Amino acid sequence: MINNKLPKIWYGGDYNPEQWDAETWQEDNRMFKLAGIDVATLNVFSWAMIQPDEETYDFSFLDATMDRLYQDGVYVCLATATGAHPAWMANRHPDVLRVDVQGRKRTFGGRHNSCPNSPTYRKYSARLAGKLAERYKDHPSLLIWHISNEYGGYCYCEHCAAEFRVWLQERYGSLEKLNKAWNTRFWGHTFYSWEEIVPPNELSEEWGGGRTNFQGISLDYRRFMSHSLLECYKLEYEEIKKHTPNIPVTTNLMGTYQELDYFEWAKYLDVVSWDNYPSLDTPISLTAMTHDLMRGVKNGQPFMLMEQTPSQQNWQPYNSLKRPGVMRLWSYQAVARGADTVMFFQLRRSIGACEKYHGAVIEHVGHEHTRVFRECAELGAELSLLSDSILDARIKAKVGIIFDWENRWATELSSGPTIALNYVDEVHKYYDALFELNVESDMIGVEEDLSNYDIVIAPVLYMVKPGFAKKVEAFVAAGGTFVTTFFSGIVNESDLVTLGGYPGELRSLLGIWAEEIDALFPNQKNEIVLKQSWGALDGTYECSLMCDLIHSEGAEVLAEYGSDFYQGRPVITVNQFGAGRAYYIASSPDASFLQGFLSNLCDEKGIKPLAKAPSGVEVTRRVKDGLAYLFLLNHNAETAVVEIGDEQKKDMLTGEMVTGSVSLAGRGVMILEGNEA
Amino acid sequence: MINNKLPKIWYGGDYNPEQWDAETWQEDNRMFKLAGIDVATLNVFSWAMIQPDEETYDFSFLDATMDRLYQDGVYVCLATATGAHPAWMANRHPDVLRVDVQGRKRTFGGRHNSCPNSPTYRKYSARLAGKLAERYKDHPSLLIWHISNEYGGYCYCEHCAAEFRVWLQERYGSLEKLNKAWNTRFWGHTFYSWEEIVPPNELSEEWGGGRTNFQGISLDYRRFMSHSLLECYKLEYEEIKKHTPNIPVTTNLMGTYQELDYFEWAKYLDVVSWDNYPSLDTPISLTAMTHDLMRGVKNGQPFMLMEQTPSQQNWQPYNSLKRPGVMRLWSYQAVARGADTVMFFQLRRSIGACEKYHGAVIEHVGHEHTRVFRECAELGAELSLLSDSILDARIKAKVGIIFDWENRWATELSSGPTIALNYVDEVHKYYDALFELNVESDMIGVEEDLSNYDIVIAPVLYMVKPGFAKKVEAFVAAGGTFVTTFFSGIVNESDLVTLGGYPGELRSLLGIWAEEIDALFPNQKNEIVLKQSWGALDGTYECSLMCDLIHSEGAEVLAEYGSDFYQGRPVITVNQFGAGRAYYIASSPDASFLQGFLSNLCDEKGIKPLAKAPSGVEVTRRVKDGLAYLFLLNHNAETAVVEIGDEQKKDMLTGEMVTGSVSLAGRGVMILEGNEA
Amino acid sequence: MINNKLPKIWYGGDYNPEQWDAETWQEDNRMFKLAGIDVATLNVFSWAMIQPDEETYDFSFLDATMDRLYQDGVYVCLATATGAHPAWMANRHPDVLRVDVQGRKRTFGGRHNSCPNSPTYRKYSARLAGKLAERYKDHPSLLIWHISNEYGGYCYCEHCAAEFRVWLQERYGSLEKLNKAWNTRFWGHTFYSWEEIVPPNELSEEWGGGRTNFQGISLDYRRFMSHSLLECYKLEYEEIKKHTPNIPVTTNLMGTYQELDYFEWAKYLDVVSWDNYPSLDTPISLTAMTHDLMRGVKNGQPFMLMEQTPSQQNWQPYNSLKRPGVMRLWSYQAVARGADTVMFFQLRRSIGACEKYHGAVIEHVGHEHTRVFRECAELGAELSLLSDSILDARIKAKVGIIFDWENRWATELSSGPTIALNYVDEVHKYYDALFELNVESDMIGVEEDLSNYDIVIAPVLYMVKPGFAKKVEAFVAAGGTFVTTFFSGIVNESDLVTLGGYPGELRSLLGIWAEEIDALFPNQKNEIVLKQSWGALDGTYECSLMCDLIHSEGAEVLAEYGSDFYQGRPVITVNQFGAGRAYYIASSPDASFLQGFLSNLCDEKGIKPLAKAPSGVEVTRRVKDGLAYLFLLNHNAETAVVEIGDEQKKDMLTGEMVTGSVSLAGRGVMILEGNEA
Repeated sequence: MINNKLPKIWYGGDYNPEQWDAETWQEDNRMFKLAGIDVATLNVFSWAMIQPDEETYDFSFLDATMDRLYQDGVYVCLATATGAHPAWMANRHPDVLRVDVQGRKRTFGGRHNSCPNSPTYRKYSARLAGKLAERYKDHPSLLIWHISNEYGGYCYCEHCAAEFRVWLQERYGSLEKLNKAWNTRFWGHTFYSWEEIVPPNELSEEWGGGRTNFQGISLDYRRFMSHSLLECYKLEYEEIKKHTPNIPVTTNLMGTYQELDYFEWAKYLDVVSWDNYPSLDTPISLTAMTHDLMRGVKNGQPFMLMEQTPSQQNWQPYNSLKRPGVMRLWSYQAVARGADTVMFFQLRRSIGACEKYHGAVIEHVGHEHTRVFRECAELGAELSLLSDSILDARIKAKVGIIFDWENRWATELSSGPTIALNYVDEVHKYYDALFELNVESDMIGVEEDLSNYDIVIAPVLYMVKPGFAKKVEAFVAAGGTFVTTFFSGIVNESDLVTLGGYPGELRSLLGIWAEEIDALFPNQKNEIVLKQSWGALDGTYECSLMCDLIHSEGAEVLAEYGSDFYQGRPVITVNQFGAGRAYYIASSPDASFLQGFLSNLCDEKGIKPLAKAPSGVEVTRRVKDGLAYLFLLNHNAETAVVEIGDEQKKDMLTGEMVTGSVSLAGRGVMILEGNEA
Repeated sequence: MINNKLPKIWYGGDYNPEQWDAETWQEDNRMFKLAGIDVATLNVFSWAMIQPDEETYDFSFLDATMDRLYQDGVYVCLATATGAHPAWMANRHPDVLRVDVQGRKRTFGGRHNSCPNSPTYRKYSARLAGKLAERYKDHPSLLIWHISNEYGGYCYCEHCAAEFRVWLQERYGSLEKLNKAWNTRFWGHTFYSWEEIVPPNELSEEWGGGRTNFQGISLDYRRFMSHSLLECYKLEYEEIKKHTPNIPVTTNLMGTYQELDYFEWAKYLDVVSWDNYPSLDTPISLTAMTHDLMRGVKNGQPFMLMEQTPSQQNWQPYNSLKRPGVMRLWSYQAVARGADTVMFFQLRRSIGACEKYHGAVIEHVGHEHTRVFRECAELGAELSLLSDSILDARIKAKVGIIFDWENRWATELSSGPTIALNYVDEVHKYYDALFELNVESDMIGVEEDLSNYDIVIAPVLYMVKPGFAKKVEAFVAAGGTFVTTFFSGIVNESDLVTLGGYPGELRSLLGIWAEEIDALFPNQKNEIVLKQSWGALDGTYECSLMCDLIHSEGAEVLAEYGSDFYQGRPVITVNQFGAGRAYYIASSPDASFLQGFLSNLCDEKGIKPLAKAPSGVEVTRRVKDGLAYLFLLNHNAETAVVEIGDEQKKDMLTGEMVTGSVSLAGRGVMILEGNEA
Repeated sequence: MINNKLPKIWYGGDYNPEQWDAETWQEDNRMFKLAGIDVATLNVFSWAMIQPDEETYDFSFLDATMDRLYQDGVYVCLATATGAHPAWMANRHPDVLRVDVQGRKRTFGGRHNSCPNSPTYRKYSARLAGKLAERYKDHPSLLIWHISNEYGGYCYCEHCAAEFRVWLQERYGSLEKLNKAWNTRFWGHTFYSWEEIVPPNELSEEWGGGRTNFQGISLDYRRFMSHSLLECYKLEYEEIKKHTPNIPVTTNLMGTYQELDYFEWAKYLDVVSWDNYPSLDTPISLTAMTHDLMRGVKNGQPFMLMEQTPSQQNWQPYNSLKRPGVMRLWSYQAVARGADTVMFFQLRRSIGACEKYHGAVIEHVGHEHTRVFRECAELGAELSLLSDSILDARIKAKVGIIFDWENRWATELSSGPTIALNYVDEVHKYYDALFELNVESDMIGVEEDLSNYDIVIAPVLYMVKPGFAKKVEAFVAAGGTFVTTFFSGIVNESDLVTLGGYPGELRSLLGIWAEEIDALFPNQKNEIVLKQSWGALDGTYECSLMCDLIHSEGAEVLAEYGSDFYQGRPVITVNQFGAGRAYYIASSPDASFLQGFLSNLCDEKGIKPLAKAPSGVEVTRRVKDGLAYLFLLNHNAETAVVEIGDEQKKDMLTGEMVTGSVSLAGRGVMILEGNEA
């Protein structure tokens, strides 16, 4: 349990009383009660208010707010306020200001605006965190710490350049090793002195939002920036832990956010929290995958849904309203996938600046007689009903899907074979097929213990880190099923090609050699032609994007290309390796192929769907203490019927017992309690 | 009359003899005579020629030119030459150079290139204007002053930053008030010292050509920049008026140009002038609306058409020739809507730099035997014929359409609900419907006396300035008809939301509450379903862009949404308020709805079309001294028949008397003189 | 012969052993032998390796490499390594770093990164070239010098600004002349001191990647930059020639690369070399045209194909594999058009940085059992077979097509009439028509002797340089046929319009006057209506882009416009001038018109196609010593039959004698030796 002071699914969100007056605070408390809100995230952007200059701190407003909330039964998720530095600090200590990827020194503005290697920022952010922890360590409302906010963005200033050189010295030890790792003999880039190394931005090696001349330095700079921002987090974390060793600490992550390696970050979070902002046209399964990833970065531990909008966003091009029922449905989707909190940005809508058209529990009209408030209050009541039953329950998946930020950076920095390769999309294709099959999967990192899984899928495993190939071999040898794809096994952790034939370190495991890699134009297709009917698969499917031209070196060829000069050459292979099997998918298949393919693999491993449900109905399961909570989520606007099997189960929202077939209204939700076994 | 030295529609344009030799000047004068040209705009870009260094001024060339023109009957619109600073000034006084929105200090180049808060620019521009006024105050050719040229562009330099802080101190008095107006508690932006405030550009709060984190500062910077440029104008104006208090002064505006609040500017212009550059695919009614706006910024006073091209432009992507007759037709369109001059850029085509492929009365071939020259000469002869008959005649419209630059800035700076909202387009939709109905309208500012109108339309009245809601209430209570739309009544002049329910200050007048605002994707539509047939309206129409979800609070519901979860909720309402009616249009309707809707409103108010004319025929009317001049403009390539009623009217271009039906050739024009009553 | 040490078509390419170890070098030599490789380009990016600081040079690696290669029969194309400066140089001498078009000082990174006017760069690059020449002047492997690499890119730093002013002083002599040439009276840009002139970039006159306010300065800056980079080349050239006066020197050009005037450059190259990188969708005839241009910049002298990829590129968006046979086919296309070498980038694929997914003879797998290697080895064997037979053979064309970089810059810098005008595309339309007709043409500069040709075509001859109009008149008067198009004869070399009527200096030759120029929207078309059937032409064809509205002043009108207000006015004219004829094409015709038109002109001049071949089969001919080598290149995937006439010819790749009809397999090649006459 995140904090047993509040043993239920926390319900609340970001709250900024400093933007309002006393009359409004009273009204807030009245409405929080109506809505069943029991947690408020405070102090996210209050640095300038709390600290008006270098030496002055004024916590009186925060003191009063925490007391007032607590008196009305609202607990606090307390932010450290370091997500945006004060204007005075930017004015007096310009080292806090970033230099952007274009090489421009910024002036004061925005948020998430501090240079992570700024001495001023590091000094004052850690000091503020310490002061807050010291002051509120015994406050009864304090549930959890929320360090900074949505860390992100890179800096390219001189402080960063200097620290980058230090980081490189630690990583490589010598310039000789660095020159080798970056292959600096290419284009005559040999460095003879650390001072010659400058950050890779649009003034040096990069252009076009992430294209680069030198993958080595660009990849390392991403590692370094993720590390630098994490260092800022850790400095605050340490200050906090000095005073409140037992209060959990988090910072709100952003799902598949590109710039930070969240597997690395999660090691230093007591609990993962994240902000979920799908658009109207985001695939449901992509949101699901992102929840699973946020659960996966900390080995399956339940997480916090820190932010979502009750109604609409403001920063999308077209900010649709969430249709009636959708807020509730998507809230349960989070819970179904591991969230133990349901929290909003924001509890009350601001009246000025760029987020005033972002939805809130309390709208500008200010009263409770709105669709949005009613939906929030209904959900609040339901969550109270659920009490602590689901808290800490786990998802137990037998399929693991590898996701790796460094691999993603490397694939996306690659010059060639195609700009159309998008790592998240390729991973999502495999995830989506399992989602449609109602088969549970975990999103896992490369450090995960694979033996927990029957099947491990690693789409576009371009970068193979030290030891990982051996680990996969052991997994397969012991009976596991491994799946990987085109453009895998190509480079090591420095983005240097593994010589001797693709897929490099994975070659013997897969029993193939990829001689060439063709990149297809956006409208070009090829075909996957099954050599013979195989389970759910038969005949011909489409593939696109890239086509590896492979040779079998022992692998069985399951399907061949249907056209072009490599017609008849293998496109799908499987290799028996020890007690297990390793599949290679040499191109990017269409959805129907992948569903059939993964259905076959699940059949081979005896992995069953959680339920038989029509398309658009999401099914997940959390288990705890021998009980299983089956979530049925109908994303369709129409009623759907789901077959849940013969065991009697309890509908936790109505208390009724159900069995066999259940009927879900459009956008309806059921949570059915039964036995795990 | 602008200046009664030349009591006719002035005909001429920009003339740059400094680019030519003496032989050419003689030829110019000969051809001006052939073309009926009687006014030349001189000295627009001559600063570098007139003032070769800080202390030297040489007016000899200008002296000679003005004398020579006058001898041949050509009057002068005399520019102050401050639209582009000399290269020596940029080199020796870099403070004249702007810093752009990306934070880059510019070097010498272009035009409209001076920092408006540069001490050097202010000193030398005002001094030059004064010297010109002193020298030419008694020159018989001098008709009008033309200060600078097409003011525009913003600067973000340190001088501007410093002056911005001064301007803010004057506007807000205290940082406390500024912090409140900008809602700086949001994202911890509280300012403790004026020095902490920096201009909002791509280094601080803005990105993407007008997106911003902080609407308050961005809105104020637009006000400040419009003000700063106007200050430059006013400094020159004052210098000029010291010497020539009775010679009118103008600067050429640019229609719906985004960056300057022309209602504010027009207060300091003796007469409005503007440059009309439609493209081949600009809707005719948008050009018409822009003329009306240029008339409207100075309360209906006739204006100058300062620039148009005789044939083609150079800066469009594809610079089509004006088809035969189109230059004449569009010239009369300007006159029909209030212009008392017809002037070109340019009288003779330059041979070098970026405007050499911009059309001119005298083309590169240099003689009069061109299509373009012939059309110019024919028009010159016609304008002479018209003499002073139309000068000073007014348009008398009973419909006013509100246009407000600050509201426009605020809507376009808004983060959410949709990037697709374009203020000018929404205004134009209403204007266009009246245009198609041949009903006259005025484009008016929020300071206008509304009692002059029967109907006032305020599309997307997002920002309601102090006192304006009361003014509209008084107008409606007294019997007026008011129309406004979705996303109205939302904020005050600081872009802070009016709490208590949209549309804020307009809520009781309109008798509705807008609970939510949905933003539609580009291809999404909804429908307006009439509850019962109403005049020209019946059945179902399309709407798009944004949909307010409104409740009637007393208003009659005329139509409902046809689909989505808000199907059946009101989309068109009317509220009886005192003796008048207030309409609310909760989405952006298609053209057929708006024509029917405004036709109904005109019928209610007894407002009649000027004539019965087929589509593509524009009809306007100017009145003076009891006489009315009816303009019929056939924008079609084919002949059109227009019914003008039974009164006999005189065709002013042929002298013939006409009545009943008249036939206009393709691209033909008629000006029919009759009685006003 | 480029160098008679190796009297055959050189076969090899870029080789970077400094990226590899000794074991790999041995393997390289083994595989070079297998592939028939006899030339390696060394040292292209080795500056940092060879010179680790200001005073130290270390040639030991290069010594060893050259010796080792020579021992195994591989000759060396020796690069001077100045295409990328060392990091230490950028760090210690920042003047080597460029300022980009946005005004940003760059930091270390990329390649082709040195300011061409940097004193440091000029000093050290020339010194390095001299040292290399001194050291290797007698090395038996040395075939040719390769200075720097793919010169390109502009700089806008203070050093460039200062040198630009010097260059301008030399060009113009006085500011008065410069002001006149740039027409600085426009927009008040008069310069009173040389120091006032700043480079034209995005901080001054330019924007949008090549749009400008002032054509004069922008055009001169392009001249100056092309000159500055050429000066760098020449400094190295002179140092080299001191030591090796008899070894040829080149630098690798890039076909139609926009930024450098290759006609000017070619004067200082002993032999032209270039890098050919067509994409999958590049028209075959555009590649052919580019080869011809590379032959043409040095008056028809055979050139080197310095680089092409054996399989795929890395920097295209979608890097398709070259289909089987295509590498061979395109290699012969180069030879067919004048190449005496076939060379690759690269011999072995690098393992790190941005070109690791660029194809190579030796792929990452490292052995010879790949499709790519096999195709390379087969071609190597064929080229050995051909021995020296084709070397130095010339193309003898009777049609010359004018290509002029300064004219291209001027047309593309033009503001108006249309942004859609692309000089290379317009030239290519005419080239392509002849290509389809199997008629040989030369791409020639304006300095070429026109009397070598029967027909000279000058598409969009916008800029007419001093003396060129007289030269064309003399050519036509003597019986030649001249063709030019819309937007020709407009300006002089300073981009100042020639007054008195378009097409200016060409007007009497063409017997027409172009009164106006219409620019069409992208989807707009007009028609070319033949007044009567003419040879291969009859009826109606499409035209687009721009339409000159011309009057005949003596020319015969062959076709008229089919629509718009200029329907019935001339679009195709021919003027008898002395013994010859001058054609004017007033718009941009479709391909079918141009094929018919040029077919007619060839018929008039008795120019015959080389063979009768179906579409997709390219036919060229090189002649030497009374023998002719007819190349047949089948770009189709299917077999094609070509009629080659009755003379018996020898198939040089098979030794067989053929006559009449020959059959070429898909992507097949024949080189048929016969008599020239």
